[in-house]
Amino acid sequence: MAIIVSHPSPEKIDWWIGQLQPLLPGWTIRSIHDPGAAEAVTYAVVWKPASGAFLPFPNLKAIVSLGAGIDHVLADTKLPRQVPIIRTVGTDLTQRMREYVALHVLRHHRDMPAIAANQREKRWTQLVVPPATQRSVGVMGLGNLGGTAARTLASLGFETRGWSRTRREIEGVTSYAGAAEFDDFLAGCEILISLLPLTEATTGILGTSLFTKLPPGASVINAGRGPHLIDGDLLAALDSGQLSHATLDVFHIEPLPSEHPFWTHPKVTLTPHIASLIDPPTGSRIVSANIERFEATGHVEDLADAERGY
Amino acid sequence: MAIIVSHPSPEKIDWWIGQLQPLLPGWTIRSIHDPGAAEAVTYAVVWKPASGAFLPFPNLKAIVSLGAGIDHVLADTKLPRQVPIIRTVGTDLTQRMREYVALHVLRHHRDMPAIAANQREKRWTQLVVPPATQRSVGVMGLGNLGGTAARTLASLGFETRGWSRTRREIEGVTSYAGAAEFDDFLAGCEILISLLPLTEATTGILGTSLFTKLPPGASVINAGRGPHLIDGDLLAALDSGQLSHATLDVFHIEPLPSEHPFWTHPKVTLTPHIASLIDPPTGSRIVSANIERFEATGHVEDLADAERGY
Ligand SMILES: NC(=O)c1ccc[n+]([C@@H]2O[C@H](COP(=O)([O-])OP(=O)(O)OC[C@H]3O[C@@H](n4cnc5c(N)ncnc54)[C@H](OP(=O)(O)O)[C@@H]3O)[C@@H](O)[C@H]2O)c1
Ligand SMILES: NC(=O)c1ccc[n+]([C@@H]2O[C@H](COP(=O)([O-])OP(=O)(O)OC[C@H]3O[C@@H](n4cnc5c(N)ncnc54)[C@H](OP(=O)(O)O)[C@@H]3O)[C@@H](O)[C@H]2O)c1
Repeated sequence: MAIIVSHPSPEKIDWWIGQLQPLLPGWTIRSIHDPGAAEAVTYAVVWKPASGAFLPFPNLKAIVSLGAGIDHVLADTKLPRQVPIIRTVGTDLTQRMREYVALHVLRHHRDMPAIAANQREKRWTQLVVPPATQRSVGVMGLGNLGGTAARTLASLGFETRGWSRTRREIEGVTSYAGAAEFDDFLAGCEILISLLPLTEATTGILGTSLFTKLPPGASVINAGRGPHLIDGDLLAALDSGQLSHATLDVFHIEPLPSEHPFWTHPKVTLTPHIASLIDPPTGSRIVSANIERFEATGHVEDLADAERGY
Repeated sequence: MAIIVSHPSPEKIDWWIGQLQPLLPGWTIRSIHDPGAAEAVTYAVVWKPASGAFLPFPNLKAIVSLGAGIDHVLADTKLPRQVPIIRTVGTDLTQRMREYVALHVLRHHRDMPAIAANQREKRWTQLVVPPATQRSVGVMGLGNLGGTAARTLASLGFETRGWSRTRREIEGVTSYAGAAEFDDFLAGCEILISLLPLTEATTGILGTSLFTKLPPGASVINAGRGPHLIDGDLLAALDSGQLSHATLDVFHIEPLPSEHPFWTHPKVTLTPHIASLIDPPTGSRIVSANIERFEATGHVEDLADAERGY
């Protein structure tokens, strides 16, 4: 009845142990760096575990990802592939993401970067943009997060479309599925939001070939994962005017190194991986509830599919 | 069968005549500065008419305000008070306003001013705010615009309350009515939006006395009219920290003079009266349809009440 916690930051390990222990009183919860008897460990709660981190623990029943994505777990080439992976999602995470997407789509739609520049220059210029009902936006990835984001955009009045691997029916959202419908999807995205999981198929998807299929002057929001984006392709598309603006929440390296051109690019809005950062008390409640349910029933709703990659 | 157009900007007069003439082919449409036979004029289409502007026209059937507010018409002390005033509203205007309110409430809620400052300073700081479900926001004025804005905020998940003269029932919105319930209303507004019409009762309402009744650190969005706000009181409340931020779309003098401190105040976001600037083709369709309907039936939905002041 032991749980280990793994996180790149030692303080975060202590912090998660402190949060989870009172919620899971029957369990011994320890750091992966000081795990005690390895055979007793049946759950691992992890964010970006080191390669081979799970090899010492022969009796793992499940690995809990401290986030909706599991790419940081699958990155471990020595991962015991038979161990189920539990994602951490829930209404708190989807609520935060739909706020983020609504905010940043509206910012692009209403041209806030230009309005802010006018304020700095003391220019009273009344920019009139079409209403959202005449603005076509698209969401890549229609899962827990992308599906809720698309529904929210439709409810705000946007002409909304979505793209997924298999067809998804969401009220008010035009569905596009698979590679065959990808170009048609992109042709109508004046504002494109990516909420894909990071897999082999989606790595580098936000690159020149995609950008040239968007309407000229489109803007792009990446709230999925950093490696979806080819950084140099984005800079080229912004500088040529093919794209007008990008809002980025995720990066190849986080924290983003201070010399990276995104920090100061006038057409980049940068947020530090906070699109849907769950607050600690809520996150711990979800993680502990999932462990208890999995222990009791061998199943939880938020099981990932390691074969599929998400 | 003549219509006159009055606007402070001569180009806008020509422009409105050009837009309306093809939509109202049976009518003679002229500038107020060159009206032709005064007795023939039965409608006046106006924005900020000069005092006494209507005195030469004895046969006016209605005055059409080029906007939802009629304060700019009632400001004329020589106004023929018996002439009905038609407001220009409609789904285009309410759609644009709900976008504006959603955008700026989400900006405050997610602390975008601090996030933008962090980008400028290249600081990777993960601010976590509560989800909207734990954020209480309030809308003053629950008419066409405020009512739709409140409904939109509720649909985004915010704990939403609204204040009006008479009680209004809006799904998901807690209703407060009249002076007796004003302080209770304000006590729960972490983000306050004003969409009141400008009347004697509402002039100067956004001042120190109101600000001190908000939760400390609240933010304020004024998309009603400039004279709702006491500019000096706002600056004092921002500087003391009583308020954390203000977004202002309307001002005592527009365009806002370049020496006004709002332009450069770090806690003020300024937009140049564009919260719901209707685009010209849509606006002309609404105005011409209202004139035709009023001419045919003596009534339109969007009649203002001069006695009430809005
Ligand atoms: N920035 C942040 O703060 C933050 C926070 C949490 C999560 N995230 C990111 O958001 C991602 C999505 O999370 P989620 O919970 O919504 O995931 P999810 O429920 O697993 O949904 C993934 C969606 O992407 C689609 N998809 C996957 N591979 C695809 C492909 N090759 N082509 C087309 N569509 C594909 C899936 O299609 P099907 O519907 O056909 O399966 C599904 O609609 C996470 O993986 C994570 O990277 C970011
Ligand atoms: N910034 C922009 O771009 C822009 C664009 C258009 C309009 N506006 C402004 O927005 C205002 C509102 O437009 P609207 O079409 O929503 O107006 P409306 O339909 O006439 O609604 C006015 C609302 O304010 C309430 N109200 C009026 N006096 C009050 C008082 N003394 N105390 C409490 N509540 C009071 C009314 O209460 P009841 O419900 O009890 O009558 C009503 O709910 C316009 O007057 C204009 O100034 C701004």
